[in-house]
Amino acid sequence: MAKTNPGRFFEDYSIGQVIDHAVPRTVSGGERALYHALYPSRHALYSSDAFAQACGLPAAPIDDLAAFHVVFGKTVPDVSLNAVANLGYAEGRWLKPVYPGDTLRSSSEVIGLKQNSNGKTGVVYVRTRGMNQRDETVMEYCRWVMVRKHDLDAPAPETVLPDLKSVLAPEDLVIPEGLSFADYDFTLAGEPHRWGDYEVGETIDHVDGVTIEEAEHMMATRLWQNTAKVHFDATFRPDGQRLIYGGHVISMARALSFNGLANAQMIVGLNGGAHANPCFSGDTVKAWTEVLDKAETPAPGVGALRLRLVATKGGAPFELKGEDGKYLPGVLLDLDYWALIPT
Amino acid sequence: MAKTNPGRFFEDYSIGQVIDHAVPRTVSGGERALYHALYPSRHALYSSDAFAQACGLPAAPIDDLAAFHVVFGKTVPDVSLNAVANLGYAEGRWLKPVYPGDTLRSSSEVIGLKQNSNGKTGVVYVRTRGMNQRDETVMEYCRWVMVRKHDLDAPAPETVLPDLKSVLAPEDLVIPEGLSFADYDFTLAGEPHRWGDYEVGETIDHVDGVTIEEAEHMMATRLWQNTAKVHFDATFRPDGQRLIYGGHVISMARALSFNGLANAQMIVGLNGGAHANPCFSGDTVKAWTEVLDKAETPAPGVGALRLRLVATKGGAPFELKGEDGKYLPGVLLDLDYWALIPT
Amino acid sequence: MAKTNPGRFFEDYSIGQVIDHAVPRTVSGGERALYHALYPSRHALYSSDAFAQACGLPAAPIDDLAAFHVVFGKTVPDVSLNAVANLGYAEGRWLKPVYPGDTLRSSSEVIGLKQNSNGKTGVVYVRTRGMNQRDETVMEYCRWVMVRKHDLDAPAPETVLPDLKSVLAPEDLVIPEGLSFADYDFTLAGEPHRWGDYEVGETIDHVDGVTIEEAEHMMATRLWQNTAKVHFDATFRPDGQRLIYGGHVISMARALSFNGLANAQMIVGLNGGAHANPCFSGDTVKAWTEVLDKAETPAPGVGALRLRLVATKGGAPFELKGEDGKYLPGVLLDLDYWALIPT
Repeated sequence: MAKTNPGRFFEDYSIGQVIDHAVPRTVSGGERALYHALYPSRHALYSSDAFAQACGLPAAPIDDLAAFHVVFGKTVPDVSLNAVANLGYAEGRWLKPVYPGDTLRSSSEVIGLKQNSNGKTGVVYVRTRGMNQRDETVMEYCRWVMVRKHDLDAPAPETVLPDLKSVLAPEDLVIPEGLSFADYDFTLAGEPHRWGDYEVGETIDHVDGVTIEEAEHMMATRLWQNTAKVHFDATFRPDGQRLIYGGHVISMARALSFNGLANAQMIVGLNGGAHANPCFSGDTVKAWTEVLDKAETPAPGVGALRLRLVATKGGAPFELKGEDGKYLPGVLLDLDYWALIPT
Repeated sequence: MAKTNPGRFFEDYSIGQVIDHAVPRTVSGGERALYHALYPSRHALYSSDAFAQACGLPAAPIDDLAAFHVVFGKTVPDVSLNAVANLGYAEGRWLKPVYPGDTLRSSSEVIGLKQNSNGKTGVVYVRTRGMNQRDETVMEYCRWVMVRKHDLDAPAPETVLPDLKSVLAPEDLVIPEGLSFADYDFTLAGEPHRWGDYEVGETIDHVDGVTIEEAEHMMATRLWQNTAKVHFDATFRPDGQRLIYGGHVISMARALSFNGLANAQMIVGLNGGAHANPCFSGDTVKAWTEVLDKAETPAPGVGALRLRLVATKGGAPFELKGEDGKYLPGVLLDLDYWALIPT
Repeated sequence: MAKTNPGRFFEDYSIGQVIDHAVPRTVSGGERALYHALYPSRHALYSSDAFAQACGLPAAPIDDLAAFHVVFGKTVPDVSLNAVANLGYAEGRWLKPVYPGDTLRSSSEVIGLKQNSNGKTGVVYVRTRGMNQRDETVMEYCRWVMVRKHDLDAPAPETVLPDLKSVLAPEDLVIPEGLSFADYDFTLAGEPHRWGDYEVGETIDHVDGVTIEEAEHMMATRLWQNTAKVHFDATFRPDGQRLIYGGHVISMARALSFNGLANAQMIVGLNGGAHANPCFSGDTVKAWTEVLDKAETPAPGVGALRLRLVATKGGAPFELKGEDGKYLPGVLLDLDYWALIPT
C-alpha cells in the first residue's frame, strides 16, 4: 500500500461529501510577527492590543487573511493537489476573529460537480469552514477548482451547480461581537479618511511596490502548511520557476492597500476573486483599489466598503482587461471584498 | 589579550572535561512559527495544542529537531569552530518535551580522544546534554568531530574510544510522561497508516521536494545561535558558496517525510547520522525512508519505528551507496532514528 | 482628495510641532524569535528569561535595537518619506526595557529647522519618543534628516539649531530598575571579559561576517513597519538595487560584536551615528569596535563602556576615514554608543 498522499481526483468527489482536513494549528504571536515581516501589513487593529481593545475587542486578532490562509492551507492536500486551476471564490465570510492561542482546523463539503466536455477534467465546488478549539466557525468560503480525472473511464457524475451569490449583501456580513468604532483613533490608525470620504466608483493607486523573493513566498506558504509542490520545487515546472501561491499575492496587495485604506480595518466578506496571471520571484507587485459599494452596519460607528483590489506586476493602475475582455498580462489578482471602516 | 573566541583546538580537550556552553535561550511560539515557516513541518502533535492534549501532553511541544538544534547550536563555539568534519552521532535521546516558555542551556563532556596519524588533527567525542530551567535533561546525544591541532608539537593524548551503541535498544527510549495514542485522531493527523501498516524493509519515497534558499538556511541556523562562519559569509570559502548547516538538511528531510509518515509523530532516539555530501543554495532536497525495525512500547497505543531517513539532491530514491561503498554524490544525509507512532 | 500619504515636505514642519505617529504595535516572542533569526544576536540577557532574572529583571526584554527599530519605523511615514539623507543621531537613551506583551507607539517633536542655501531642501531635527501601553517613555533619540521642499516658493523658516550633546555623560544614562550584575554568570554569557579588561583606545576585530540577502533585510524592515519604498521596490532606483535600511546594518554589526563584547549586554545610550556608505544585497558585513570611554554606574556590578562600532563591507578592520577626512568606501556605519557590562 502506497503511503504517500496522491491527492483526490475528480471521480473521488461526490455531492454532500464532507472532508475533514488534517493538521490543526495553534497560532501565536509568532504567526503574527511572521505575517508582519512577510507583508507590509499595518492595520492598527491587528498590530496593537491596545488599539483593538479601544475598538471593543479583547486583543489584536491575527490578520484576517492569515486566518484565511491557515484554513485554506489545510484544504490543499484534499482539494487542490491535482488541480489544474483555481477557478474562483464566493461567499467568503469572517465570522469570529482569531486570537493568539486559538487552534484552527478546517472542513470542506462538496457542493457542486461538473465534468468537462473533454472527459479529462471536472470542476469541484466546495464550501470550506474553519473552526476554532470551541468548534465555533471562524470563517467560511466557497471555492471551485478544475481537477484532473485519474480514471478516464469513471462515469461522469450528475452535474450540480451550486447557487452562489455573486456578491454578499450587507446583511450577510457578520460584525465581530462588541466591535465599535465610536472612539476610533484616526491618528494612531494612520489616515484621516472615513467611510463618508469614499465614493462609489472612486479609484485609489496605492503607490508602493514590493519585489517578490523566493525565500519569502516559500516561508509564507509553508507557514500555512500549503503543500503544493509547484510553490517549492524548482525542478517541478519545465521552466524552473516556482509558481507563487495566489494567497501570497492577495496578502501582499491587501497590505499595500494600507496606503489609502488604512482605516478599512477588518475584512468581513469575500465576494469573489481571480488569479489573473501567475506571479514569480522578481516580479514587483503593486496594487490599486476601486470602491464598488458602500453600506451601513448596525455596529457603533462602523460602516462597510465593498472594494475591488487589483494586484499588478508592471501594469498601469486602473487598467484591468483588454478589448477582448481578458485580463491584461500585468494583472495578477482581481479581488472583490467587504471591509469595515469607521463612519 | 584577544577578546574574540578562537575556538578550541584538539590539544585543548581532555577526557572527562565538562564544557558548559553559553547563551541559554527561552523558546516561545515565535520559534515554533519560524520552524514551521522554514520547514514543511506538519506533524499534528507539534502544530496543535488541542491535538497534543488529546495525546496526554499539556500542550504542543516545540518540534523535537528544533529542540535538538537549540541544544546543538550552543556547542558550536566550543566544539566545532575549528572542526574539519562532523563525523557522526550516536545515542541521541529525547527525554522531556520542550514547551514554549522553557529555557534551554547545554553542556558537553569529552568522552573520547584520538589523535590522527598525520599529527595535525584528532577526533573529539562529546556527550552533550540539553537542560531546561528546572535542570531537567531534555535531550542528550553523542557526537564526534575531527578538530585541527593549533600547536602541532602538543603531545598526543592517550587514545580513548567511547563504547557507543550503534543502535539504541527499544528499552533505551524514553516515552514522554502521560503520552497515549489510545484516542489518536488519524483524520486530523493526516494519514491512516499505523504501526502495523509498516514492515521492516519497506521503503517510502516522500515525493515532495524543496529548493533551498540562502535566506532560509541562514535564518534557521542563526535562530539556533550556530555561529560557524562557513554558513553565513560568502567570502569564507574559495568558491564563494555558503555551506548549509547539516541540521537544516535534517529538518528539511524529516519535514518532507510527513508525506508517508504523518503518524511517526515524535522522535525519541537518534542512532546515528552522516552528512554524506555538502548542500548549497539552489539544491532541491527530496527524501526517502527505509523501515529498519519495529518495537512495542509500554505506553497506551504507542509503537516505535526505527527509520533510515535519506535526503537527496537529484539522486534517485532508494539509491544510497556506490559499488565502492561510498555514498552516491546525490545523497546529502543518512539518518537513523526511532519515532513513536500509534499502533 | 488623494487618499495616499505623500509624506511631509520641508515647509510642512514648524518648531515645536508634535507629530503622533501611527500604527502602535504589540510585541511578542514572535518579534524576538524573528530578531534572532535575522541577526546573529546572542547577548544572554535578551535570549534567556532565567539569565535576565538572575540580573534582576522580570524577564528577557526585546533586544534594545529591536525596540529602537519599532519606535523608529513608525516615524518614517511622517519624517523621512521625502528625505534625501539621514544625517545624524544624538542623545539616544533607552529608559525602560521592552517586554513581550508591551505595546509601543511613538511621537516626535520638531526641535530644529534650517533651510539649505539651494532653497530646495532643508534639515529637520526631531526628538522622537517611544511609549509603552502605560505611557512610560521606553526610549528617546534625536535625529536629523535632509528633506525636500515641495513648494519652492514657501518662505524659509527661521533657522533653529538644537543644542545637542555630542556625547551623553555617564550620569545621563538610565540603568533599568533592579539591574544587578553582582551574580553575573560569565560562562552562560559566553566570554570572561569584564569592564576592567577593556581599555580606552583598545580595538577589537569581531572577525565574523554575514553576507546580506534581499529577503532578510526586507523582512526585518517590514517587521518594523518602515515603509520607505527604496527598501522594497527594485524598480524604484535607476540601478535596480534595493537600498538596505540603515538600521539593518546597525543590528547586524551589533550582533556580530558579540564575539569580543559578549558581556556588553545592554545598550543604554546612542551618542551618534553615521551611515557612511549604502549597503546592498550581496555585501558581506563585518564589524570592529574601538573602546572610546569607560564609566562607573551606581548599579551593583554594572559598568559602562562607550564604544565606536564600525560596520564594513570589504574594508580592513580599524580603517575608517581617508586622508580627505571622508569615510572610506568600505565603511558602512560609524556608531557611537554606551553599553552596560559587568565590572
